[in-house]
Amino acid sequence: MTTTITINEVGMRDGLQSLQAIMPTDAKKRWIDQAYAAGVRHMEVASFVPARLLPQMADAADVVAHALTYPDLQVSVLAPNLRGAENALASGAQRIVAPISVSAAHSQANVRRSPEEMVEEFARMCDLRSSSGRHEVIMVAGMSTAFGCTRQGEVSIAELCALVRRVLETGCEQISLGDTTGYATPGQVGDTLDAVREIAGSKLHAAHFHDTRGLALANSLVAVQHGIRELDSSLAGLGGCPFAPGASGNTVTEDLVFMLQSMGYTTGIDLPRLIASRALLAEALPGEPLYGHIARAGLPKHFSARGE
Amino acid sequence: MTTTITINEVGMRDGLQSLQAIMPTDAKKRWIDQAYAAGVRHMEVASFVPARLLPQMADAADVVAHALTYPDLQVSVLAPNLRGAENALASGAQRIVAPISVSAAHSQANVRRSPEEMVEEFARMCDLRSSSGRHEVIMVAGMSTAFGCTRQGEVSIAELCALVRRVLETGCEQISLGDTTGYATPGQVGDTLDAVREIAGSKLHAAHFHDTRGLALANSLVAVQHGIRELDSSLAGLGGCPFAPGASGNTVTEDLVFMLQSMGYTTGIDLPRLIASRALLAEALPGEPLYGHIARAGLPKHFSARGE
Repeated sequence: MTTTITINEVGMRDGLQSLQAIMPTDAKKRWIDQAYAAGVRHMEVASFVPARLLPQMADAADVVAHALTYPDLQVSVLAPNLRGAENALASGAQRIVAPISVSAAHSQANVRRSPEEMVEEFARMCDLRSSSGRHEVIMVAGMSTAFGCTRQGEVSIAELCALVRRVLETGCEQISLGDTTGYATPGQVGDTLDAVREIAGSKLHAAHFHDTRGLALANSLVAVQHGIRELDSSLAGLGGCPFAPGASGNTVTEDLVFMLQSMGYTTGIDLPRLIASRALLAEALPGEPLYGHIARAGLPKHFSARGE
Repeated sequence: MTTTITINEVGMRDGLQSLQAIMPTDAKKRWIDQAYAAGVRHMEVASFVPARLLPQMADAADVVAHALTYPDLQVSVLAPNLRGAENALASGAQRIVAPISVSAAHSQANVRRSPEEMVEEFARMCDLRSSSGRHEVIMVAGMSTAFGCTRQGEVSIAELCALVRRVLETGCEQISLGDTTGYATPGQVGDTLDAVREIAGSKLHAAHFHDTRGLALANSLVAVQHGIRELDSSLAGLGGCPFAPGASGNTVTEDLVFMLQSMGYTTGIDLPRLIASRALLAEALPGEPLYGHIARAGLPKHFSARGE
């Protein structure tokens, strides 16, 4: 199995969209520049939703256009419905992620559709991609609340797998399991990945954790142990969690890269450069808490910063 | 393999000794009471060192005497030399941990002895235990800087194993591997435990991690995957790290218990009671940062708090 792991920086999307502050477009572009310069080659840079609902993402098309100036950068965006997918396709984004919540309560709150209705919408989004001739665009089912839900409580593996089976009928290319609420725990992550792989095979592609309960790195580790080779994360753990004030947000990219490189995995990322790019967040998001351990503690004395 | 994992609360020793503040004896006793009430049955409660070097530990004998009022509590103490072991034996402590650094630089700074000299001192401590007739007292070689050192940098597995071989000749009962400096990473933890188990067998007993670089839980998880069934940790991650300002200290007990119980392991600990006991630290150590995620985020909705 490959020892290369793809880090998908989702801070520009998942990180920023949960903050009160709105990052200026220019700062977003500089963030993309700095992440690229540090070696990040996969980013989820925007969400195509109405600006009145998420003013943080009003500049989505502009941000995508900037990201596309890097020919070897894979540019992902989120789109919650057919209209979003239209705009995403028009923007030139190369990968479109649809949020499909396993929890009915979360799905209603998030996209005002039941999980089954959202799968049907996702099927229409996949069809649109095909009918528009943009066959190279990768459609991703982002399975939200895959590990539990603050509203519903437990989300069973059986529930998740039932929904994944329907998702597989849409003809999507990739499935990502998202711990939207920071409920995932290591044993559950392993069991869940094994069960989904059983039915989705190599379409089970990525995992997305939050550090709400301090388990983002342990969960990421288990995901890698169970064959996952793409992980979402956010610089400085940006994102917070509206359901858990004071608790940190997404997996911290620089801590994740440190862990993976220490284990001999290749990420292609220059850790000191990545850490240095936190300064941009401090400047563009004054007062916003920046999370992460490695930036404060520093790399161990003998550590090879590029992991090569 | 057993699914019961022993949590050894070391906050009263490792946590407190690295703080500037001195916790009043009465607060230490109440901490022991509250930890016991939450189900903690193993605690390292003091260090037998000269009070002029560590005034935080001046009340060691008094604190041990209080802990010993609980008949089913295993009471451990640290002792860095023969004199400390004498006092520890006199106190009635049931387990004595000697810090044996693999890094020569750290060993000199910490105990003013080379690693080899410290092993010889530890042998004398083990002999003293036997000649005093206190055969039930468990002697533990606490292998410090087992995963790296801020002064020396890398500590190789070969170096560690060479020292462990000498330690095994002392007739000690248990070996604990300590990540004194927060350098350990998950792959290294697995490799190191496997190598030490090869030569120490069941005497390889416990592991001790710091969260300096955010990996305490991931490292604890790997330790459990590699057969460790006793882990050190500290309530609220108390301890800090003098070498990394702003970085948190020991593994956070309540986060560790949450992770282990979520995975189906039994710790015997009542998590809500344990979390509630943080209030004592806030009161007795005003201004001291308290770490940990689960106390802020709360338990997941469906979580069984006692893990049973």
